Amino acid sequence: MKKVRVFAPASIANMGCGFDIIGFTLDEVGDILEMTMTEGDGITIENESGVPLPEDIHKNVVTPVINKFLDIMDRKAHIDVKIVRKIYPGSGIGSSAASCAAAAYGMNALFGYPLSDEELVECAMEGENLASGGYHADNAAPAIMGGIVLIRGYEPLDLIKLPVPGNFYCAVIHPNIVVSTKEAREILPKDVPLHDAVRQWGNVGGLVAGLYSGDINLVGRAMKDVVAEPYRKKFIPGFEDLREKLLATGALAMNIAGSGPSVFALADKFGIASRAGKIMKEHFDSRGIGYESFVVKVSNNGAKILSED
Amino acid sequence: MKKVRVFAPASIANMGCGFDIIGFTLDEVGDILEMTMTEGDGITIENESGVPLPEDIHKNVVTPVINKFLDIMDRKAHIDVKIVRKIYPGSGIGSSAASCAAAAYGMNALFGYPLSDEELVECAMEGENLASGGYHADNAAPAIMGGIVLIRGYEPLDLIKLPVPGNFYCAVIHPNIVVSTKEAREILPKDVPLHDAVRQWGNVGGLVAGLYSGDINLVGRAMKDVVAEPYRKKFIPGFEDLREKLLATGALAMNIAGSGPSVFALADKFGIASRAGKIMKEHFDSRGIGYESFVVKVSNNGAKILSED
Repeated sequence: MKKVRVFAPASIANMGCGFDIIGFTLDEVGDILEMTMTEGDGITIENESGVPLPEDIHKNVVTPVINKFLDIMDRKAHIDVKIVRKIYPGSGIGSSAASCAAAAYGMNALFGYPLSDEELVECAMEGENLASGGYHADNAAPAIMGGIVLIRGYEPLDLIKLPVPGNFYCAVIHPNIVVSTKEAREILPKDVPLHDAVRQWGNVGGLVAGLYSGDINLVGRAMKDVVAEPYRKKFIPGFEDLREKLLATGALAMNIAGSGPSVFALADKFGIASRAGKIMKEHFDSRGIGYESFVVKVSNNGAKILSED
Repeated sequence: MKKVRVFAPASIANMGCGFDIIGFTLDEVGDILEMTMTEGDGITIENESGVPLPEDIHKNVVTPVINKFLDIMDRKAHIDVKIVRKIYPGSGIGSSAASCAAAAYGMNALFGYPLSDEELVECAMEGENLASGGYHADNAAPAIMGGIVLIRGYEPLDLIKLPVPGNFYCAVIHPNIVVSTKEAREILPKDVPLHDAVRQWGNVGGLVAGLYSGDINLVGRAMKDVVAEPYRKKFIPGFEDLREKLLATGALAMNIAGSGPSVFALADKFGIASRAGKIMKEHFDSRGIGYESFVVKVSNNGAKILSED
């Protein structure tokens, strides 16, 4: 028998212009799993998190992650999973990815770390596919590797860890508006005008350049999404008003977190992020919409083992 | 009276994935202008380069560049331009941009360097617009600033100089096939499938990350163009065959230079670039197509003053 307690952080996908290819992690918010490996075969899942999750293990995202891991390893084992802490599903900060990343990282720890980051992300993507019907790594990759991760390509998976500015804070708010990832994807057109696509990849280049050169204003200027945001912002009441207020208070940028409905604002000072968080709350208060919100540092830490026996 | 002799280098636009937003300069290949400023008003152009150019000064790309410069400065002057050396037009290595860049940089020198790089590129883009009916900076910006330049955005113009790897060589060949920039643009679809656009901006992110981190293999992996190349490669006989041979000899990537028909291959060793150049020549020799070709270092130098009186 071997047992690990594993943490994987919350994450925000897209980072403005980086639709489907960039994501970053948030400090201290995340999922905790306890995973026990014994001889035999099969998976059991106990949910102690207090967050409602499907009882059927085949509907729990950790199941395909564990199966994929065992499949790559060509091994059998009985894995018992205890879900200790869980980000609320649909929060827009990579709830499913945190579970998937924790499960993949935990399996790797149980087996003595045989798999690469890319292979672990491939495992995690199986869970993401169960959650949203698509193989996306823009939450799972940062949740495993930490920091800001670029997915250069999917075939094969090519993951680049980008530099995280020393002072980089994030205010994020999850308004209680129901938008499924599926719905948020279906609203997008299948084709993008070439002119907009050029603007988007100019911004992706600028964002990556800003992160490497530590030019925080360039990061802010580049975090513009002209492809998905024009469609998805309709789900978020007063989106442009809110952005105007956040930029006026000194935030570098405000964008939709992943497919929404959460939004986030980045800042190079905690004080600005803190004010941004307050403005976000007032914005949804005034519209009678409930929310959860956080103000955290953008983290350089990914999944980690908290304890092992 | 004031007089400058100004050089601006050849350049290659797009660099694979960076359609319309990235370009880089080539060492020692370029245009030389002699520009003389006297009191008065008007432009005269003498062509001593041996390369045929329009006699009508309103059809010469340097004219709108000079006019834009004077317009921004709100000044009048008589400018006499002697075209001393000229890249052959239609060569695919930024022939018009080299003249435009030299004219803009030369004007700035004549006036004591009042304008920023962005303003000079705006001047140069007036000439690019005359040449090809579009405001593109992906040759003009590197031809002025040198090295590898990212155009983060056009409105307003936001130019980022990216790091040039220490050992970075380019073989480029201009086969004698007539493809106008206009024709090469018209063959492109107005819309891009979202899936391809995502691949392109993942690669742009990877290319910029590779340049900053000095990961030359990442640069090579990222230099894929899934947007323009599938259409434009039809203009170039045996395109895929040629690429296969160049990659087999150790080139990092082979791509179309700008809108073609020139192609280029990058390498981290001069010997590989040199072999690549030989393979390119054999490729077009065997098809009975004439060409010009160069093997040069990717340069960090942009426009410069050679002498002044």
